[in-house]
Amino acid sequence: MTDFRPTSPYPMITVEEAWQRVADALAPLPPERVAIGQAVGLVLAEDVIAGVNMPPFPASAMDGYAVIASDTAPARAVVGEQSAGLDRFLRVEPGTAARIMTGAPLPDGADAIVPVERTREENGRVVIDGPVSPGDHVRPIGQDLKAGEPILTRGDVLGAAEIGLLATVGHTHVAVHPRPIVAVIATGDELVPPDQTPAPGQIRDSNSDALLAAVALAGASPLHLGRVGDDRDALRQALLDGVARANVVMTSGGVSMGTRDLIKPLLEELGTVRFGRLSAKPGKPMTFATVRGIPCFGLPGFPVSSLVMFELFVRPALRLLAGHQRLMRPEVQVRLAHAVRHEPDRTEFQRATISLREGEYWAEPTGVQVSGRLKSLVGANVLLRLPAGRGAFSAGERVAAMVIDEQHPGLLAVAGSVSRQS
Amino acid sequence: MTDFRPTSPYPMITVEEAWQRVADALAPLPPERVAIGQAVGLVLAEDVIAGVNMPPFPASAMDGYAVIASDTAPARAVVGEQSAGLDRFLRVEPGTAARIMTGAPLPDGADAIVPVERTREENGRVVIDGPVSPGDHVRPIGQDLKAGEPILTRGDVLGAAEIGLLATVGHTHVAVHPRPIVAVIATGDELVPPDQTPAPGQIRDSNSDALLAAVALAGASPLHLGRVGDDRDALRQALLDGVARANVVMTSGGVSMGTRDLIKPLLEELGTVRFGRLSAKPGKPMTFATVRGIPCFGLPGFPVSSLVMFELFVRPALRLLAGHQRLMRPEVQVRLAHAVRHEPDRTEFQRATISLREGEYWAEPTGVQVSGRLKSLVGANVLLRLPAGRGAFSAGERVAAMVIDEQHPGLLAVAGSVSRQS
Repeated sequence: MTDFRPTSPYPMITVEEAWQRVADALAPLPPERVAIGQAVGLVLAEDVIAGVNMPPFPASAMDGYAVIASDTAPARAVVGEQSAGLDRFLRVEPGTAARIMTGAPLPDGADAIVPVERTREENGRVVIDGPVSPGDHVRPIGQDLKAGEPILTRGDVLGAAEIGLLATVGHTHVAVHPRPIVAVIATGDELVPPDQTPAPGQIRDSNSDALLAAVALAGASPLHLGRVGDDRDALRQALLDGVARANVVMTSGGVSMGTRDLIKPLLEELGTVRFGRLSAKPGKPMTFATVRGIPCFGLPGFPVSSLVMFELFVRPALRLLAGHQRLMRPEVQVRLAHAVRHEPDRTEFQRATISLREGEYWAEPTGVQVSGRLKSLVGANVLLRLPAGRGAFSAGERVAAMVIDEQHPGLLAVAGSVSRQS
Repeated sequence: MTDFRPTSPYPMITVEEAWQRVADALAPLPPERVAIGQAVGLVLAEDVIAGVNMPPFPASAMDGYAVIASDTAPARAVVGEQSAGLDRFLRVEPGTAARIMTGAPLPDGADAIVPVERTREENGRVVIDGPVSPGDHVRPIGQDLKAGEPILTRGDVLGAAEIGLLATVGHTHVAVHPRPIVAVIATGDELVPPDQTPAPGQIRDSNSDALLAAVALAGASPLHLGRVGDDRDALRQALLDGVARANVVMTSGGVSMGTRDLIKPLLEELGTVRFGRLSAKPGKPMTFATVRGIPCFGLPGFPVSSLVMFELFVRPALRLLAGHQRLMRPEVQVRLAHAVRHEPDRTEFQRATISLREGEYWAEPTGVQVSGRLKSLVGANVLLRLPAGRGAFSAGERVAAMVIDEQHPGLLAVAGSVSRQS
């Protein structure tokens, strides 16, 4: 029986100070060049300049006839059909016109397109309805993109339009910050895999699956290193394995003050512990260290605690490593629908749903807020941030809320908005 | 030279009517049972009931000592250490206490936990500071979950907390609506792969990469069927291949009225065209059909047109197939920072960025709005919806805007919000 460590050697620091220590220890991962099909959702690590004009030739914006705008002929002889993709170019002269398809190059001599809806073709001659001006329905060279123009900038997130732009200019491989690989290790002698029936005193490991899911939803690559019992050598080996194979190591459990809580001493032995206690509820034993330059997050073992700490520290850290500028979830001011109990010694994060009433967000906690109760996170769209330094809050008071479900329909529905129904 | 089809056989319908026809033709994909690790982000297709209590035994919420609350002994003999995961259970009697670790089962006889911070152990005896009440820091059986309690409901989206809950109760495989597989086909004789240099009259295919990215970002599985020239037999084969291998087929190009625009006639031949023209800009030639029960979207060929049509029809359709309840992007009311030109005959979707000023969203269009100009979508966070039936809009007027970048920092920052800095 080794001894308890009844007083922690780690000072209790605020969430803000703790995040600063995490951010100070991190930098975006070195860029890698990948095919654009592999770059979706990643952050660009280079500026991209258009190497070509788009369109590269004057092109028709419509199906119709290529004509000379100043031509006064009442009916024009159709000299042929200019389709897209052909390298045979027609020539239009006064008294003639060419059929032309959307996207096809403007025939030599022509300076305008007349949409097919405004024409009538009979016996090889086309009659045009209405006036024609030079340039009508012609996409001039470089209308979409001009050669030499910057099209994307380092730091841009590559969505569908950005990927399409890269393809347009033939930039088929691109420098991006890669997805961080995150090793996930659940610790504790009491854990059994979820597909096993726990013996007395045991419980199923839910943190592995929950944290692997959280990593994937944050756009990073999860690496499951399994469950490790409260054994110093096995934990040391798992941590070293994670540090060797991943960009980030994340453990759950083993950070309290019990005799079996081995994560902090091991992180001290292998690297540098940057904080070991947090003035937050949940999350008091939250730990952050670097080992051989790799950030290691020691999350508490309670399911809600570990996910809330993931939200506060790991998700923004993964976004920083991936090169994002926006690291944090947005926060909004909300009013409390009910009085809320709160102890003034720590910042507290309560799970709640918010909805809009008369131009303001109102928050409703999602039931009992104990740290084990994952159900309190189901359906929650915010984490209320109840500040340290004061006690209980009354109904109607305003507090900050971190929005964890940005797609929630109520969130953007500011006063007077229309709602498009599905 | 085959003939133009100068008048379309398809009536021009509104965006709302067109969406209704899409929705009427679709139903969520039949549920499949998958491992929870494969279910992240998918929609649950069954109700899940807790089969066990959580915790399954009275458990300690802290590291400390298990005691009898009513015990008046000034110092208690420590009978041993109760760790998590052991099936050896200690017994606490008056005058004794047991060390206990967070998560460990409460020893027989004990009814409260005293946190280690409030204790002092010397020579095998522990002295407790302050009063103790029965139940202190004990997590009773079923505190987190009660056996028989519904924990998740058909229609829930499986995020990290939901996946963790399923693991907790040993529900390791779960019925979900699968990710739709979406076949992507780019059409046009003028297209070359993005890594080739276009010959005169040719352009690089950007739609394939852009639409494959859009499918992935919508949470569906892209299937690239490549580029097909304007050849009836090759297009028929590609469409049939897509219908056989995917849940949705999406083409780009080939839907105008030119002689090479073969998609509509082929969809008529193979299935049922449900609409073939849309009263929208961009998107007039937008087409929707079903072939052997498979929805087929014929998107216009211009890059912006195809992505805007993806947003309006394909993304919500993919969400419907995946079982989501919320199909559409949220819409907000915005005020125009500048006057906007608009022709009253069609609903127009302009790309813009919105930001918050004095409690209202203000919209700034993202440059020239021609259909080819993908750059107008880069950085856009909304599509302004300019309704048919009236002409130009003045600066300051209010219009609806579909939010396409829900993570944009300005969007949730309603008046008075705090912004957590990174």
